[in-house]
Amino acid sequence: MNFPFKEIRKKLLAGDFSGLFRISKDNGNSFIHPSEVAKLFISIPAEKAIEAFKSFQAEQEVSVFPYLDNQLQKKVIGSLPKVRAVYILNALSSDDRTIFYSSLKGVELSSFLEFLNEPNKTALHKVLGYSDKSVARIINTEFATIESGMTIANAMEHLRNNHKDTEAANVIYVVDEDGRLIDDIPVRRFVLNDPQKKVEDILDGYCTSLKITDSKEDAIQKFKEYDRVVLPVTNDNNILLGVVTVDDVMDLQEQKDTAEIQKFGGIEELDYPYVKTPFFSLLKKRAGWLIILFLSEMLTATAMGGFADEISKAVVLALFVPLVMSSGGNSGSQAATLIIRAMALKELTLKDWWWVMRREFLSGLALGIILGTIGFIRISLWQQFHWYNYGPHWILIATTIFFSLIGIILWGTLSGSMVPMILRKCGFDPATSSAPFIATLVDVTGLVIYFSIAALFLRGTLL
Amino acid sequence: MNFPFKEIRKKLLAGDFSGLFRISKDNGNSFIHPSEVAKLFISIPAEKAIEAFKSFQAEQEVSVFPYLDNQLQKKVIGSLPKVRAVYILNALSSDDRTIFYSSLKGVELSSFLEFLNEPNKTALHKVLGYSDKSVARIINTEFATIESGMTIANAMEHLRNNHKDTEAANVIYVVDEDGRLIDDIPVRRFVLNDPQKKVEDILDGYCTSLKITDSKEDAIQKFKEYDRVVLPVTNDNNILLGVVTVDDVMDLQEQKDTAEIQKFGGIEELDYPYVKTPFFSLLKKRAGWLIILFLSEMLTATAMGGFADEISKAVVLALFVPLVMSSGGNSGSQAATLIIRAMALKELTLKDWWWVMRREFLSGLALGIILGTIGFIRISLWQQFHWYNYGPHWILIATTIFFSLIGIILWGTLSGSMVPMILRKCGFDPATSSAPFIATLVDVTGLVIYFSIAALFLRGTLL
Repeated sequence: MNFPFKEIRKKLLAGDFSGLFRISKDNGNSFIHPSEVAKLFISIPAEKAIEAFKSFQAEQEVSVFPYLDNQLQKKVIGSLPKVRAVYILNALSSDDRTIFYSSLKGVELSSFLEFLNEPNKTALHKVLGYSDKSVARIINTEFATIESGMTIANAMEHLRNNHKDTEAANVIYVVDEDGRLIDDIPVRRFVLNDPQKKVEDILDGYCTSLKITDSKEDAIQKFKEYDRVVLPVTNDNNILLGVVTVDDVMDLQEQKDTAEIQKFGGIEELDYPYVKTPFFSLLKKRAGWLIILFLSEMLTATAMGGFADEISKAVVLALFVPLVMSSGGNSGSQAATLIIRAMALKELTLKDWWWVMRREFLSGLALGIILGTIGFIRISLWQQFHWYNYGPHWILIATTIFFSLIGIILWGTLSGSMVPMILRKCGFDPATSSAPFIATLVDVTGLVIYFSIAALFLRGTLL
Repeated sequence: MNFPFKEIRKKLLAGDFSGLFRISKDNGNSFIHPSEVAKLFISIPAEKAIEAFKSFQAEQEVSVFPYLDNQLQKKVIGSLPKVRAVYILNALSSDDRTIFYSSLKGVELSSFLEFLNEPNKTALHKVLGYSDKSVARIINTEFATIESGMTIANAMEHLRNNHKDTEAANVIYVVDEDGRLIDDIPVRRFVLNDPQKKVEDILDGYCTSLKITDSKEDAIQKFKEYDRVVLPVTNDNNILLGVVTVDDVMDLQEQKDTAEIQKFGGIEELDYPYVKTPFFSLLKKRAGWLIILFLSEMLTATAMGGFADEISKAVVLALFVPLVMSSGGNSGSQAATLIIRAMALKELTLKDWWWVMRREFLSGLALGIILGTIGFIRISLWQQFHWYNYGPHWILIATTIFFSLIGIILWGTLSGSMVPMILRKCGFDPATSSAPFIATLVDVTGLVIYFSIAALFLRGTLL
């Protein structure tokens, strides 16, 4: 923290807003950084934040608004006098406006849409027509264009007269007379070259762009690959429609990874951060998958029921059920984690399935032998040192555990690696559905493997 | 893909490098984008890539090198004639150089260090002295500075004469005569203002910076908070030492999230992508945690052993062990996922533990009642429709399951949410150690809860 967060927060809670402004030599009324103001607001009760918000001037409101979270944004717009809400919503940059409206639904959406002027409303309608997974939802339609025949000096003059000092002016786009994208120039290149040169002489011919129909995921990928801070977005005719900036892409990446982690933990993706998600909404997101998992795990009770005779003859078999099951589950979740993440990062594609299968087969076999051996030793030790008596046939029991662990871990590893690929192949999101599928598959079939191997080794002795 | 990846790859494999160059009007020998070249190289066998690499000119090598992965970088440097390797390593930008050397160890590190010239070696030694978790490891020491008394026109002239056209010149730093950071100016502001203005008149007074000792995680956080593309890095005396650029920060964020996901899946963090990790190294990373988990899960066999009498009297109890255990595990992993991610995103801090505990207590109770009810209904239905016969005391068994599920899910949820916070409090990484702790805790204590509740309800009838 470069700024005294706690102090200002205390003042705010007491209704003193002076901490939000800093003293600068010619403007006693300028802000601390808008993101700092937003952070303070998010940390205090919404009513307090709205009260402080009302004390601002219009321009200040506009600069802070994009940094607030969705929930607070809605409350602020709902609480301000209509004329101010209208001002803010129309003055936002187009990407921030789209992001705000994308978070609204139903009545709220239609009532807040009325706050926009005609051009903004039309533009927003167009963008909201695209899937919320497409880059259209984060494009900024303010961008600076020039033509290639200009000199650098002309181009700079043109920019000075036509463009505001915003992030969007960091890269300038060269277009032809129909608005088709020719190349992009980082604005530094104007400064670093002789102003008498022509624009066309400082083009480098590398111009990567996104299509308006590309997914947000494509955008993340391209920013990482090309190390860019802004990328232009065009339609199918290569007409420049807007730009996507790296700050929005970083937020997307974080959201995407959070969703992946949550899905992997067996929770439906949350709409808000954990601390901001209302109790019942959170409960619903958790109960959904927990119930599905519970219902499918009920098959284990059915499977165990099928082996009730064996258990009653050899109770000792029941003792190792949790150990054997959890080993299968753990090896399955290791494999699934590796494969799902590698697919998300595009390191693996479906075409690699055969390579993955052979590799995971060997890994599973090796891991199974390692754990199987430990299990065998465990039983032998306990028996030798009289810590537990597995009866006269203890060596057969140890052998059963050895082979069961190999079978189950091999099976867990193969399921964990193949199920995500099969789900992807069938058009499902591998992260969402893998956990329950793999858990059930490995647990239920694991029990069958275990009791079958037991039958093989113990028939005629214990069974 | 904007470029014909497959075609060029096919040519490359046949030893034809022409696809790597594109025809442009004045320079028939310019590249397709360096990141595209790198992507092609990573997709073909290393020897082929090195062969192609050798056909390049020095400047081309320097532009492609940073985009290669660590493993290929090492092979390339090891295979090129020494004079070219020396050229490349010294010509890299300082952040790319540090990132390359950070991936080396032991002999490799010391032998490649000899390739650097004195100033680069000294600078690198200084940077490698910082923890590999600090931003020092990603700073770029090429940056552009000016003094505030200059006019914009002077400043532009100064930049033209002293700075190359690199990403680092997107933001210009205003320093005093001792090199202390005063403010930053995006270079666009020079273009968008009257060249006769003074630099001090276009400063906005917002200048967020990182300290050289800050962690990489602090850097990620600050980039997200302030929506910046470059941040300056200073020492304790506010002397400007270098800059950190957003492309490196995006890579960091991805690595961090990948590590978090892998740890959560019970695997040690991989040093390379899944597909690039050698088989035995991958096996080691997996076997480690799998063995620890296996050893701790052995306690379940011990716990079950303690209840062997109960099981032999009422085999039916064993049938529900997997169901009950997996429900505890699933609810625990849900809670742990939510809390660990919320802590990683700084939405939650340790101070919030009491709030979290109350919230998770209520969640666990609610989820337990829901699943418990489903479990009760399951047994009743199966009994009523004669799908399975749980004996005359089936209603007591159903009651046991009902209360056990409540107890175990409540316990799983509380452990899942509190263990990560306790681990963080004790200075451990919550993501690393949570999975095994929670799994063991929930499974072993879950069994105890289950059999204790069974004893309570079934004493005198089945037990």
